Amino acid sequence: MDLAIFSLVAGLSALTFAGYLVWHILKQSTGTARMRELSDMIREGSTVYLKRQYVVIVFLGAILAITQSLILGPFEALTFVIGAVCSGLAGFIGMYAATRANVRAAHAAEFGLNKALSIALRGGMVTGMCVTGIGLLGLTALYFITGDPAQISGFALGTAIIALFMRVGGGIYTKAADVGADLVGKVEVGIPEDDPRNPGVIADQVGDNVGDVAGMSSDLFESYVCAIFPAMLMGVAHGVRGIVFPLAVPAVGILSSILAMFFVRAKSEKLGGAFLNALVITGMPIIIASYILSQQMFGDLNMFYAIVAGVSAGLSFAFITKYYTLHEHTPTQTIAKAAQTGPATNILTGFAVGLESTALPTIAVCIAVFIAYKCAGLYGVSLTAVGLISLLPQVVAMDSYGPIVDNASGIIEMIGSAGEAREFTDALDAAGNTTKAVCKGFAIGAATLAAIALFAGYIETAGIEIISIVDPSALIGLLIGGMLSFTFCSFLIHAVGNAAFTMIKEIRRQFNEIPGLREGNAKPDYAECISISTNAALKGLIIPGLLAVITPITVGFAFGVEAVGGLYIGLIISALPLALLLAHAGTAWDNAKKYVEAGRFGGKGTATHAATVIGDTVGDPFKDTAGPSLDILMDIVGVIAILFAHLFLVFSLFQV
Amino acid sequence: MDLAIFSLVAGLSALTFAGYLVWHILKQSTGTARMRELSDMIREGSTVYLKRQYVVIVFLGAILAITQSLILGPFEALTFVIGAVCSGLAGFIGMYAATRANVRAAHAAEFGLNKALSIALRGGMVTGMCVTGIGLLGLTALYFITGDPAQISGFALGTAIIALFMRVGGGIYTKAADVGADLVGKVEVGIPEDDPRNPGVIADQVGDNVGDVAGMSSDLFESYVCAIFPAMLMGVAHGVRGIVFPLAVPAVGILSSILAMFFVRAKSEKLGGAFLNALVITGMPIIIASYILSQQMFGDLNMFYAIVAGVSAGLSFAFITKYYTLHEHTPTQTIAKAAQTGPATNILTGFAVGLESTALPTIAVCIAVFIAYKCAGLYGVSLTAVGLISLLPQVVAMDSYGPIVDNASGIIEMIGSAGEAREFTDALDAAGNTTKAVCKGFAIGAATLAAIALFAGYIETAGIEIISIVDPSALIGLLIGGMLSFTFCSFLIHAVGNAAFTMIKEIRRQFNEIPGLREGNAKPDYAECISISTNAALKGLIIPGLLAVITPITVGFAFGVEAVGGLYIGLIISALPLALLLAHAGTAWDNAKKYVEAGRFGGKGTATHAATVIGDTVGDPFKDTAGPSLDILMDIVGVIAILFAHLFLVFSLFQV
Repeated sequence: MDLAIFSLVAGLSALTFAGYLVWHILKQSTGTARMRELSDMIREGSTVYLKRQYVVIVFLGAILAITQSLILGPFEALTFVIGAVCSGLAGFIGMYAATRANVRAAHAAEFGLNKALSIALRGGMVTGMCVTGIGLLGLTALYFITGDPAQISGFALGTAIIALFMRVGGGIYTKAADVGADLVGKVEVGIPEDDPRNPGVIADQVGDNVGDVAGMSSDLFESYVCAIFPAMLMGVAHGVRGIVFPLAVPAVGILSSILAMFFVRAKSEKLGGAFLNALVITGMPIIIASYILSQQMFGDLNMFYAIVAGVSAGLSFAFITKYYTLHEHTPTQTIAKAAQTGPATNILTGFAVGLESTALPTIAVCIAVFIAYKCAGLYGVSLTAVGLISLLPQVVAMDSYGPIVDNASGIIEMIGSAGEAREFTDALDAAGNTTKAVCKGFAIGAATLAAIALFAGYIETAGIEIISIVDPSALIGLLIGGMLSFTFCSFLIHAVGNAAFTMIKEIRRQFNEIPGLREGNAKPDYAECISISTNAALKGLIIPGLLAVITPITVGFAFGVEAVGGLYIGLIISALPLALLLAHAGTAWDNAKKYVEAGRFGGKGTATHAATVIGDTVGDPFKDTAGPSLDILMDIVGVIAILFAHLFLVFSLFQV
Repeated sequence: MDLAIFSLVAGLSALTFAGYLVWHILKQSTGTARMRELSDMIREGSTVYLKRQYVVIVFLGAILAITQSLILGPFEALTFVIGAVCSGLAGFIGMYAATRANVRAAHAAEFGLNKALSIALRGGMVTGMCVTGIGLLGLTALYFITGDPAQISGFALGTAIIALFMRVGGGIYTKAADVGADLVGKVEVGIPEDDPRNPGVIADQVGDNVGDVAGMSSDLFESYVCAIFPAMLMGVAHGVRGIVFPLAVPAVGILSSILAMFFVRAKSEKLGGAFLNALVITGMPIIIASYILSQQMFGDLNMFYAIVAGVSAGLSFAFITKYYTLHEHTPTQTIAKAAQTGPATNILTGFAVGLESTALPTIAVCIAVFIAYKCAGLYGVSLTAVGLISLLPQVVAMDSYGPIVDNASGIIEMIGSAGEAREFTDALDAAGNTTKAVCKGFAIGAATLAAIALFAGYIETAGIEIISIVDPSALIGLLIGGMLSFTFCSFLIHAVGNAAFTMIKEIRRQFNEIPGLREGNAKPDYAECISISTNAALKGLIIPGLLAVITPITVGFAFGVEAVGGLYIGLIISALPLALLLAHAGTAWDNAKKYVEAGRFGGKGTATHAATVIGDTVGDPFKDTAGPSLDILMDIVGVIAILFAHLFLVFSLFQV
């Protein structure tokens, strides 16, 4: 039980450290009036959007809470609300820090790379600390109060549902703006990215914050909770130590991330590599601590092996994603090369790379599951997810760093700053590319292992020992689950496609109708573009959200517990490769474009470059809307399955 | 046993009727010297390719046969060879008829629509009769010889392996040529499709034959065999009637298709609709016959319901595909509309439509499985596949009709014929669009139900009653199976992408280096393009073929029977939506382009049209290479699982 208190302390330390970092960031100068003006626009746009989004979410959340309270009882509804609030909070704080850090990093870049890097890193670490700190505190506190992990499922559902709304809404917002701004600005009008003449440019920057920071923070918060929760659930069979162990290991991860931060700060050259070192530095204490804890608490090293399997799987995902998506490696170069014969071959090659990239991560999951199960059964399998997400404070920090430097470099570009500051922010932005790729892979790994752990939790909760695929209810569930991830993505990509269509028409209209806009003598109407993205996002998040909730419940009440088990495994089976395909192909197209922009195959302005821009645009909603949302979908369905398991046992319409 | 003789008679009738049709076609005039010259080039190109392909296939097939003979015994190897030869034969005869019918249909178009239609239909029906006739004869004869359906698995494997090679090779060939010819000819040089100045045009026409006729014939031949075979296997439990019933129903289908042919011939207006009527006319006698047979042989209507469930599922697939892919319906129109803002939004919308289109067919499969299982258990489930493929003679005929009229219209275009003949072949070609869409959906449905039936057969053969998804071996199998379909497709799309890249460079080179080619004063070097496609196809078919064979065997010997069961279900779960996505998105892009070409959104020559051409090109390997190959992959893995089940039971390395 001392360990649970240790977890509380670690959670509180995270929040304290985050507070210190925010204080430190706010102390920095916000630069010139023009910088402040731009950053205020971005911040206001982001806040306005987030407020409207919260209104929609509160409304949908309230309906779900009331329904839950009626079906499952008031306690589940209460913990659901707590989880939802925490998830929203994690997103909000992340965005708060990012929208403050961006302009300060931009300003600092005028004085040198290291200064700017330090601010951006601290901004990212605020999110890392809040996401994991709030998560660990919430889980530990609820365990203290209830004494029973099964009672935490409402909390987990709350985090997952809000994360889905935030991720989907933010993802649609950011990509509608990005696609629209890029296609008209870069391709048709021929002005650079982040040019202030582009009417979509502020919406694009806002999108970085509401999608890549707020959405992503909620997303990873949810992954964190949904990875630890099933391990606690499975741990009950091992007594208190089984429940506390999955809380203690991530607590070590928080402390070691704080430590690791001081190491990254020291280096400035080869930023990408420095980040990966930070990941290794974070990992070491986790490995050592889990060795000691496993030995002391369980008398053997089985739990340790499971944790190591998870950490290794997470790192494998990260490095495999890096290989397939960064332009220093062959696959992305091949995509760029294929662009020489036009957009179609560029897209086909990227798609093929994405398909190919599903193999190794899947094998990594299989190995982790195999080792963990051999060592410690289903509890061991659930511990793999715990091992993996113990690295999350560092990963979230690295991931949040990306949009901060992206915004900073946008601000520098918009004020027309030349010289070193521009170079510095470009270098920071390039490093952000590596971290984003690594984190993306990591997030899919986290979601997959968490989903498998949740599946184990579902089996445990439903009290069933076998779900046979020969049983037609399970088979029907499997088929529907396999299809669910595809259908789910269709709504997201449709939403982005439609919004981008409207956005493109609006930006074209402004360029045609506002005299002097092309020449930079008139101001565009940024607000109209922001409003298009906002409306599209809010409209687009409702159906996928409901689909994620209603499908497992419907299947459960129609065909029973076995069918839901099948549904869930079917979902994991198809969502894993689909998420990998979308994330990897999307990111690889993006980086193939950057590769050409760096001067290969003729560089900017050539037909080859134009082809890569089209590939990049197709990839945008793949990698930033649909792909990451699948991660959350996997977790939501699992938590709902656990929450409703007992009801499915009692009632099902067509038991086959 | 009388019924088995009835099946033999039906099989022989099919072959006799096919012979009559070939005689009838050969009697028709081959038109002008220029027509003959073009058609000879196409035929020779096709024959040359097929010969080289057969050499590779015989080589690979011999290795597999020897391996099988060593592991499983000489009888399995012998039936494997018989299956392989039959499959190759089905492809060859189909292509023989098509390459004779195309020029005759082109010539006949100069004398009227009906005459041309009649020749094209007869050409298609030759394939329909041969595919199903050889299939039914082979299965029935082998049953007579062995008296045990389990001994037929080698035959089924032979058909599936060769089908995979033919489909993959043909698919790569046709799309490399198509993509290359279109991108340079239509987009860059601005000459029409099928223009004789285009160096890739003959390769493109050859591709239609080796991919869409020979490849497709082998594919559907394999579906036919692999749908009937597991039902015979499961039928053993019901005695001889259980084995013979799945032979008798398709026999009725053959006879009713012969009947239906005379109905289609009568109509000429609204060709698309006439085809669908023919499908209904074929279906009626099947329904009636299965009602009587079920009542007489089993004393109840349970088997009848299962057959009806299968027929309904097949028709649902056909009509859902039609809805999502033809431009008279909303989804395809939306894709065309999105092209107004460029290729990226066009591709995104098409992809989203493809994702969306996975939902309804999956539900159709679930309903069929549910009903069939309720009525007659796993035997009932396997009968759904039998019901569905009983319609196959008509479906194959409709499907083969497409490339014949496509070639005919190409020949008419290449000789520069104007006026009515051109209109007629265009009308026939447009109807081919409908039939192709319908058949594509049908083929995926057939493969899925056959795969589920094979899964039931595997369970039966392995003698296991449950495969629990909670068991980690099964889970590992499921994960690998889910990934397999993605990885498999990556090889195919890579192969097409690479070949298209080379083809584009070559066609560009010819336009630049051959003086007078653009103006039509010089002849292009067709042979070089044919050789690029040929080499790409032969190189590209090896790895996917081996992957399909080696994966299940490796998983089986590593993790045992449960893992292979998991692998197989995982494969079905992910291959079904992936195949639907690829087939539907690809076809919808194609038809969105046709919709714009018909004058919408500015018509040909606009930026919107150019955007749809890019979408169409991306879709080409989706719909004609990767998508259909997944159908065969599903069946191959199932047959291999059945063949090796006993060995997996005895030996597995890491039983978890």
